[in-house]
Amino acid sequence: MIRRLDSRDAQFQQELSALLAFESSQDPEVDARVAAILDDVKQRGDAAVIEYTQRFDSLSAATMAELELSQAELKAAFERLPQVQKDALQAAAARVRRYHEHQKAASWQYTDEDGTMLGQQVTALDRVGIYVPGGKASYPSSVLMNAIPAHVAGVAEIIMVVPTPRGERNDLVLAAAYIAGVSRAFTIGGAQAVGALAYGTQTIPQVDKITGPGNAYVAAAKRRVFGIVGIDMVAGPSEILVICDGTTDPDWIAMDLFSQAEHDEIAQAILLCPDAAFIEKVAASIDRQLPGMPRADIIRASLTGRGALIQVKDLAEACQIANWIAPEHLELSVAEPQVWLPELKHAGAIFLGKFTSESLGDYCAGPNHVLPTARTARFASPLGVYDFQKRSSLIQVSAAGAQKLGRIASTLAHGEGLQAHAKAAEYRLDEQP
Amino acid sequence: MIRRLDSRDAQFQQELSALLAFESSQDPEVDARVAAILDDVKQRGDAAVIEYTQRFDSLSAATMAELELSQAELKAAFERLPQVQKDALQAAAARVRRYHEHQKAASWQYTDEDGTMLGQQVTALDRVGIYVPGGKASYPSSVLMNAIPAHVAGVAEIIMVVPTPRGERNDLVLAAAYIAGVSRAFTIGGAQAVGALAYGTQTIPQVDKITGPGNAYVAAAKRRVFGIVGIDMVAGPSEILVICDGTTDPDWIAMDLFSQAEHDEIAQAILLCPDAAFIEKVAASIDRQLPGMPRADIIRASLTGRGALIQVKDLAEACQIANWIAPEHLELSVAEPQVWLPELKHAGAIFLGKFTSESLGDYCAGPNHVLPTARTARFASPLGVYDFQKRSSLIQVSAAGAQKLGRIASTLAHGEGLQAHAKAAEYRLDEQP
Repeated sequence: MIRRLDSRDAQFQQELSALLAFESSQDPEVDARVAAILDDVKQRGDAAVIEYTQRFDSLSAATMAELELSQAELKAAFERLPQVQKDALQAAAARVRRYHEHQKAASWQYTDEDGTMLGQQVTALDRVGIYVPGGKASYPSSVLMNAIPAHVAGVAEIIMVVPTPRGERNDLVLAAAYIAGVSRAFTIGGAQAVGALAYGTQTIPQVDKITGPGNAYVAAAKRRVFGIVGIDMVAGPSEILVICDGTTDPDWIAMDLFSQAEHDEIAQAILLCPDAAFIEKVAASIDRQLPGMPRADIIRASLTGRGALIQVKDLAEACQIANWIAPEHLELSVAEPQVWLPELKHAGAIFLGKFTSESLGDYCAGPNHVLPTARTARFASPLGVYDFQKRSSLIQVSAAGAQKLGRIASTLAHGEGLQAHAKAAEYRLDEQP
Repeated sequence: MIRRLDSRDAQFQQELSALLAFESSQDPEVDARVAAILDDVKQRGDAAVIEYTQRFDSLSAATMAELELSQAELKAAFERLPQVQKDALQAAAARVRRYHEHQKAASWQYTDEDGTMLGQQVTALDRVGIYVPGGKASYPSSVLMNAIPAHVAGVAEIIMVVPTPRGERNDLVLAAAYIAGVSRAFTIGGAQAVGALAYGTQTIPQVDKITGPGNAYVAAAKRRVFGIVGIDMVAGPSEILVICDGTTDPDWIAMDLFSQAEHDEIAQAILLCPDAAFIEKVAASIDRQLPGMPRADIIRASLTGRGALIQVKDLAEACQIANWIAPEHLELSVAEPQVWLPELKHAGAIFLGKFTSESLGDYCAGPNHVLPTARTARFASPLGVYDFQKRSSLIQVSAAGAQKLGRIASTLAHGEGLQAHAKAAEYRLDEQP
């Protein structure tokens, strides 16, 4: 079922490229529909959002107030949960919060010999919007992973939007919002929710940034409002790359591959291993365990369509291939993970050692599970506190500093033909040139 | 000429909104042409880039090699400069480098009570592309401001593209590239250069991120390749907001407004001041100094179209308005700037005190001059070393940690209907549930 590749084959690099090929579709038709919805929300505000919510989510409301969830409703959802779920959510939230506290950047400054002060002031965003998908991909863990970093950064107002088709609410999602410090929540979704957050409506205040995953319409809408508000990355299908030296239980590895594949038919799960016999064991385990999985159909489609078991020369080559793939999740399921860690340059999250299943990181180890996909770990980072802080440069030039800097600036400004720039610098000189 | 506003007017907020209104155009026609160029470059590589360079820049070449500038050519351009320009460029580069060294983020980790290690590994991008506009907006200072943070971050390969219409090269730009540590440089521009960097061609290697300003075609191309590579912000027209208490020489303030206005007819220069008499002096100074400026026509168009002298109640109100505007450049030209700094939340760069003309910051004070425009300082930061570094989460769960985390993850995964996630966590438990 799942394809086998071998790094020694002449065609390997080509096969690997084909396997990874996935360009985030920018369907012109979706894009045109999204543009129209955004324009309408911008012009008509609440009324437009209410109409689209009726049309796309079969949820009717006379006013936007009816689409807002009160703090009491969020709290009630939490209270309704079984104790074991309450405890798990709270434990996960506490660990995620503790981890993210380490990411908080601080302002800094220094003073030159001549008394000129230079620095950078770090402040939190005022207000952010968090998009939480509805329906089958409605995950309480995503609420924690988006809201907690914003809360740790010091964002004053966190606004969650979550579609509730036909009014079906997910208590776990609402409970997670309650725990994570969401300020306001609206049961809206799609491009109309993105528009409401980006432009503001009579009821929903304009935010400064929108984060969180969504379908093709949400992705197109986020791409379109980028610049009016900040956005996080536009996420592609989820991926795992497992590097295994053959010392981990093959059933564990098979299940780790499943846990990525079960997300989505286009999710991607790949194993790199130098041990041919171990690869056979994993393949056998996949065949044996698959029928028992509740989401077997999705897993099968994913593994068949986009999965691979790849035999490599050795672990060094595995690390090279991993760097080229720059996977979202990278399991380094080897006996001595610290030996190989320095070889790894590009990955959203690295899970070291056989006890670190990716699913522990997804929920509660502490790090964020919003990670760069589709090779974007080459340049992008996990969602973090730094996404909810921003910086202002600080410059206070002393009278003495103005003499030195003024001459340099004047020379360069004249070189660029910008005489007002030069003159403004020269005005600060004791002796006018 | 320049409009006057008063914060006490009933219509003030409306007038201010109208003044600031500027939506980065996403012209569908430009977008379609850019999409076609990008597709062509993706398919045909070098050949397409050479053709577009011939067509748009009137620069013909038989091979891409002819469009590459060697390190010797960059060095020769530097050597040809007058000594005063060499010194100014090198002094500016040294100060910019020193400032940006402060921004370098370091990896971190910590270990839980149960031996579980958590952290984040910070690494540099492998290869970045820097877009430098040609023609009238070809600024050597921009080369320094884009290349030096990448160099400080540890980027191994920095590739500059700069169009040279009809083969006209700018020695200052080439010299800046030499000083700033540019690895390779090509005399190409437009959407075709963005495409070459994003997809790679036979000659130009694919980069991981593209930064630098450009015209509407470049902006549309960057927006379109976002996701395949990283991009910096899509910049709007440049802006300055000056807060003055009336203690600075009005000629200085007028020239500071000019130095922003001279960039572009759609650049924006605004003064906030509580002192009506001082505003009159600035207005008189504008009228008196304008005719003598080499770029008087551009300055006049900018100040008339988008400038304003605004009388405010007091400095506290000025700070509130500044936060709403979230300007790219904010001059706090007051006697006690440190008193007011804590009130300022949103700005790309803050210039404190009367000696700190914005032009000093543009060239050589140290901070970056690539700054968030069009109110995006609400969520975005100056270009910095952090734009050329990225992070990977690190998680190494101990055997003991897997017991605790496994139970939490299992509960949450079952709550989300992701049984493979749960099972993968449960496999790591000593006692299978």
